[in-house]
Amino acid sequence: MVVRTYPEFSTHYPLLLKTFMQRPVRLYPDHIGLVYRNHISAEYQRFTWRQWYARTCRLANALARLGVHAGKPEAPGDRIGTMALNTHRHMELYYAVPCSGAMLHCINVRLAEEHVVYTITHAEDKVLFFDDVLLPMVESVYDRIKDTVQAFVYMSDQPGLPETVIEPLYAYEELIAAEPSDFDWPYLHEDTYATLCYTTATTGQPKGAMFTHRALYLQTLHLTALANFNNDPQTERLGENDVPMITTPMFHIHAWSQPFAYVFRAAKIVLPGTFTVEGFCDLVQTEKVTHAAVVPTILALLLESDEIDRYDLSSLVSLGVGGGALPLGLKEKIEKRIPNMRAASGYGMTETAPVSVTAFVKKHMHDWPVEKLDQVRVKTGLPVPGLEVEVLDGDGVPVPRDNKTIGEIVVRGPWVMEKYFKDPRKTAEVWYGDWFHTGDLATVDDEQFLTIVDRMSDVIRSGSEMVPTVLLENLAAMADFVLEATVVGVPDPVWGEKAMAVVKLVAGSDKGPHDLIAFLKAEGVEKGKITKWMLPKLVAIVDEIPKTSVGKFSKRLIRNRLDKFLAKAVEV
Amino acid sequence: MVVRTYPEFSTHYPLLLKTFMQRPVRLYPDHIGLVYRNHISAEYQRFTWRQWYARTCRLANALARLGVHAGKPEAPGDRIGTMALNTHRHMELYYAVPCSGAMLHCINVRLAEEHVVYTITHAEDKVLFFDDVLLPMVESVYDRIKDTVQAFVYMSDQPGLPETVIEPLYAYEELIAAEPSDFDWPYLHEDTYATLCYTTATTGQPKGAMFTHRALYLQTLHLTALANFNNDPQTERLGENDVPMITTPMFHIHAWSQPFAYVFRAAKIVLPGTFTVEGFCDLVQTEKVTHAAVVPTILALLLESDEIDRYDLSSLVSLGVGGGALPLGLKEKIEKRIPNMRAASGYGMTETAPVSVTAFVKKHMHDWPVEKLDQVRVKTGLPVPGLEVEVLDGDGVPVPRDNKTIGEIVVRGPWVMEKYFKDPRKTAEVWYGDWFHTGDLATVDDEQFLTIVDRMSDVIRSGSEMVPTVLLENLAAMADFVLEATVVGVPDPVWGEKAMAVVKLVAGSDKGPHDLIAFLKAEGVEKGKITKWMLPKLVAIVDEIPKTSVGKFSKRLIRNRLDKFLAKAVEV
Repeated sequence: MVVRTYPEFSTHYPLLLKTFMQRPVRLYPDHIGLVYRNHISAEYQRFTWRQWYARTCRLANALARLGVHAGKPEAPGDRIGTMALNTHRHMELYYAVPCSGAMLHCINVRLAEEHVVYTITHAEDKVLFFDDVLLPMVESVYDRIKDTVQAFVYMSDQPGLPETVIEPLYAYEELIAAEPSDFDWPYLHEDTYATLCYTTATTGQPKGAMFTHRALYLQTLHLTALANFNNDPQTERLGENDVPMITTPMFHIHAWSQPFAYVFRAAKIVLPGTFTVEGFCDLVQTEKVTHAAVVPTILALLLESDEIDRYDLSSLVSLGVGGGALPLGLKEKIEKRIPNMRAASGYGMTETAPVSVTAFVKKHMHDWPVEKLDQVRVKTGLPVPGLEVEVLDGDGVPVPRDNKTIGEIVVRGPWVMEKYFKDPRKTAEVWYGDWFHTGDLATVDDEQFLTIVDRMSDVIRSGSEMVPTVLLENLAAMADFVLEATVVGVPDPVWGEKAMAVVKLVAGSDKGPHDLIAFLKAEGVEKGKITKWMLPKLVAIVDEIPKTSVGKFSKRLIRNRLDKFLAKAVEV
Repeated sequence: MVVRTYPEFSTHYPLLLKTFMQRPVRLYPDHIGLVYRNHISAEYQRFTWRQWYARTCRLANALARLGVHAGKPEAPGDRIGTMALNTHRHMELYYAVPCSGAMLHCINVRLAEEHVVYTITHAEDKVLFFDDVLLPMVESVYDRIKDTVQAFVYMSDQPGLPETVIEPLYAYEELIAAEPSDFDWPYLHEDTYATLCYTTATTGQPKGAMFTHRALYLQTLHLTALANFNNDPQTERLGENDVPMITTPMFHIHAWSQPFAYVFRAAKIVLPGTFTVEGFCDLVQTEKVTHAAVVPTILALLLESDEIDRYDLSSLVSLGVGGGALPLGLKEKIEKRIPNMRAASGYGMTETAPVSVTAFVKKHMHDWPVEKLDQVRVKTGLPVPGLEVEVLDGDGVPVPRDNKTIGEIVVRGPWVMEKYFKDPRKTAEVWYGDWFHTGDLATVDDEQFLTIVDRMSDVIRSGSEMVPTVLLENLAAMADFVLEATVVGVPDPVWGEKAMAVVKLVAGSDKGPHDLIAFLKAEGVEKGKITKWMLPKLVAIVDEIPKTSVGKFSKRLIRNRLDKFLAKAVEV
């Protein structure tokens, strides 16, 4: 007797992003789901889940009409490029594209133009959706991408199309208005590729990390488990009544997967276009935002501004900080300015989708005094449950848990990238010996906490010793008078390299290089956190520290213009 | 260029129970992980996670030595039977068996002996682990299972082996003491079968529902997401510092998957052997238990006892109630007796692993007054996120959301059973038309909440109408003077069937059949919850309502001895 057993609806029920998309529209069709504020006009738009879902269905129908094809495991669907800020339309693309089987390629519009062109042509984007404010950039690269891209879609709050050479060009709102408001979302195989995210190309060309529906689904589920397990009394659980603002650019590794997690939990999602201090504050006050996630340099922007004192930011309880270490000093400064709010760190990289290690308070720490807890919260943290993470020495052996010995972070698990798009050689550089190699250096303590001390490419080799620059940067940021600090290696005839600190002071400070060294001696050397030979030999006080496309300190740009920084540096 | 891409550590990283097992031993090796109290001797045993893990490794080595073979997808590993209560040893079996690739078959020791024999021989259990208190039962069935079972293992807090004909017989503690305390857990395929759970055979022979590692893993992850999403101010998140007691028998559909969820979150797990009021109270008081889950009839046992007033039960904050509807009346009564504690309902069945629908407070309800919230909390609830659940009428169309129209609950999703073990015919009875058919009847309201009104096999057909018995039972339980109530159909020459209420009164009550009918009229008919023709035509006041092997009211036993109940019944 042969009996159908429906594995596709049981054992192999696919883990798909459409499950996330359909939850809020089913449970809360008439609740406001998305709030978008145009960062230029300051105009608000609000959408119920039903409205957002209908627009997303219309978009999926439009994609089909444009001839976009679905993929299957090992055979990516058509790539759909986006050059867009954090808008409701971008959120529609985030679901319509992967849920109809195509592959979402969010283009990092802060990359150099040559890299933007490279990623579009390397990805072979069939359709390119772009925001009105990015029209000049698209026009500027048009000649180099027009043979690749078959259709362009212009996204604007204003009706109509601009005068431009770009063609064929469609207006987003007209395109979707013509389509039916329902769509029969396919039961894709869960290994169908959903997103293509290029790295930021600090060295060489960007590499395209590919993620399947399964990988993104499982990352979200494990992060909700993490929220349950974490014993931090100040960490809110990821609830439906939270009001998260997606501050992280949606063109940067799918905004740390927030668009997936927030839709699944049916939270009201606040979208600021792009980050501005004024827009951030206005949205927090108006929408009663409770959660946001930023890179450390955004914290510095907030600190520098007088604006934040003019708004009621009391709803904001939690700020996740990733894309760079969270120095305790910076944490303390921002928490003084926004009193209800607590900042905590996270770590990841494009290839880990990205979240892989986060701040965590262990069960026996939950009633520790706040000062002691804060020390824990700024550690890079513990692996997210479900991921295997180790720190290996040069021989591939886990480093001792002594909080001192430095090794490379390696990772494996359900949401680690399997391979780069069309790039087996680069894949082989990171995947070997059963582990994905992150290129990040860390120590491990006796409670299993990781602390990132440097990128392998940034660590300074001075004599026979390694100077871990991130460790120095975190220490420096603890000084009251320091707003931002980075440390780079400069060539030295005796030691090979020596450390130079590049520092931006808080406004009005009259401190100088020797104050920094005195501080590092007192807080670092005397407290046993660093050794004396790690101290910078040069300190440059500057007005601005160069940043990468995602807001990290750009050590490459400093090295490229080293003379300029050396001219400002003082030997200490 | 051919490059290894390690899909087994990324895209296809397997979802395995070993991930749960390894988390607490890595993070909290020296914390107490399990507390077991022998329900006869009242002696306590405590194990750190390191100790429990070492014992589990020893057990896995012992299984290998006994010749137990691992399975792979579509080819189940050897079945390992357990006849055991809620003990630390059973928790070791819960992980050592599936994580080494074999299939855990927990035998429901409350089934009739013929069914116990049937499940052991149908499952072809290769090894049978049993508790000392169950020796008489094993001896009694020994002749009928000795050709199937190749080895028996005796589990006891006392050293040595009993005088018995059973052979070959090993003592658990000696067996594992001889083995190494580490084990190289394989990276199984996630579709490897982990458990085999037989239904309770209310009609016909028990059926064996099979679950893979993936199914159990995903159920746990989605339940943690549910804990985040639920807006009930009284629902605790599933944290590491909770102290759950596993009260549900571990031989009943893997104790509602609590052994998986609690180990993953590294909570201290409290194991009472078997449920007794005194043991329950002693453990809550001693271990500061915060959470437990029970069937409704256990609530009635607690209510009947004076014992609970002699203990400090103030740590207990949450009681999950499944395996039967939670009548609001019962909820109110138990919350009066244990003041910090809140009860909430859940629904599932063996074939759904089991949790599929649970109490849920939607986002706009979180600040509702407690009386109004309690009405929500006793509804069967909303589908667990990640599951598709519908209520279909006879034509396979979803019923209107009018809280009235009755349909059958159908389910599909990652942790729904794909098929019964060696039983394609029974599989075809439940899996057809793209859905698993539960045989449970429910209504749906305009907020999507399901309310179970009956089993399809229990619903009373009176004239052309259906009398939903669970609805009546829940109403009856709201009466102060009712401890337990069930409703069954009895043959009637005019109507085909008519409803008989079988009621156990609270101790000392002087109420009678007419009081019940008066109550049902006032609270049911007049408030529009039931129609007049649904009222029972007979009421029997009894000392004891027969129960099934899992503590539900046994309507079958009532029907089997109908004359006895009719003799006590009064026409109303």
